[in-house]
Amino acid sequence: MRMRKKKHLDDRLEACSSLLTEAGEEKQGKWSDFFASRRSDGRGDLPVRAEIGCGKGAFAVGMAQKYPDVNFVAVERVPDVIMLATEKAKASGVENLIFILGDASGVTGSFGDGEIEKVYLNFSDPWPKKRHAKRRLTAPPFLALYERILKPGGELVMKTDNDGLFDFSLEQLDLCGWRLIGSERDLHAKAQREDDVMTEYESNFVSQGKNINRLVAVPPEKTE
Amino acid sequence: MRMRKKKHLDDRLEACSSLLTEAGEEKQGKWSDFFASRRSDGRGDLPVRAEIGCGKGAFAVGMAQKYPDVNFVAVERVPDVIMLATEKAKASGVENLIFILGDASGVTGSFGDGEIEKVYLNFSDPWPKKRHAKRRLTAPPFLALYERILKPGGELVMKTDNDGLFDFSLEQLDLCGWRLIGSERDLHAKAQREDDVMTEYESNFVSQGKNINRLVAVPPEKTE
Repeated sequence: MRMRKKKHLDDRLEACSSLLTEAGEEKQGKWSDFFASRRSDGRGDLPVRAEIGCGKGAFAVGMAQKYPDVNFVAVERVPDVIMLATEKAKASGVENLIFILGDASGVTGSFGDGEIEKVYLNFSDPWPKKRHAKRRLTAPPFLALYERILKPGGELVMKTDNDGLFDFSLEQLDLCGWRLIGSERDLHAKAQREDDVMTEYESNFVSQGKNINRLVAVPPEKTE
Repeated sequence: MRMRKKKHLDDRLEACSSLLTEAGEEKQGKWSDFFASRRSDGRGDLPVRAEIGCGKGAFAVGMAQKYPDVNFVAVERVPDVIMLATEKAKASGVENLIFILGDASGVTGSFGDGEIEKVYLNFSDPWPKKRHAKRRLTAPPFLALYERILKPGGELVMKTDNDGLFDFSLEQLDLCGWRLIGSERDLHAKAQREDDVMTEYESNFVSQGKNINRLVAVPPEKTE
């Protein structure tokens, strides 16, 4: 997402610093502890879900409000954008959501094997040029990262308006041995899903009549 | 490759049993020892290369003859076919080549991390139907196996007459972060490469004027 440079970025990020944490391998396996000390009810025993590329945060904040019994980690690589997301989260008062500034490859190293219940990809950059295809967040090396951090029975949940990216993702998931448990080409043809929240992008697209694609997939079963 | 059922398969395999070994994780890291005890010159210190899907063995036997200072492991999943390959190897008298009956996923577990200098794929099954694409030996999970067993600077070397499989392979290698260091669409337009041997298939195709594709690729650099 390209945005105008925000004024006073550092000051505004600083004001929301309690909602930001650093990526780092020392965090692996420690998310329960993290949320236990963060939530006033001490509930660190809840499932942890991660959104990779949270943009302005409508999905992450909306889901955190909707699911108080889940802890959420939202990742975004653009400082100007994550600032808006943290401001939104701060205003909402949610205690079950934390943000990390970073990219998918770097940040997934902060999660231990099998530590995450669901990985969400919402309206990821489609990188439409073929020579950039390896940057798409469903290219095989990214799928391998998600496979590592997802717990048994965990799911990748993806939404996109970009039909090309959706086709690419279905193909790569199949090639990498993932099992598709849901796939819709027009998410909003029916009533809004109960377990979903619209992102900022999504609302715009839907009001323009653009179809939204959604898939749910589980990693290959371990053979050993 | 579909072939007529060979007569006396078990007897004939038995006669070549000295050229066959079993797949198994206990072999990881032990190929130097294996070849040291196998070769009359005791040279277990030489690089090990693996051919996945050796068919009737012309490439493996030819390369073993051409490169006495390399040790070769040739893998084939069809008993009738590997029998012909072992008979060919026995007749040649080479000491630097061993065969394993098995498939790519199972057999690569017999190699330790970084134990292999080159992986060869020659005229692999193209699995042309889209729903079978994940069986192609350059689908991402197979590339991950090769990446694990190849030593630093090691190479994947692939030849195929199937242009569709070649395109697919180039695309998957790119998506998985491999670096292409050579790619030819018509291998025999020029003189025969010095470091190559024609397979049975290949000779047939070349005599029919069919182009042969060849690529050489190296795995993604380790970031850690």
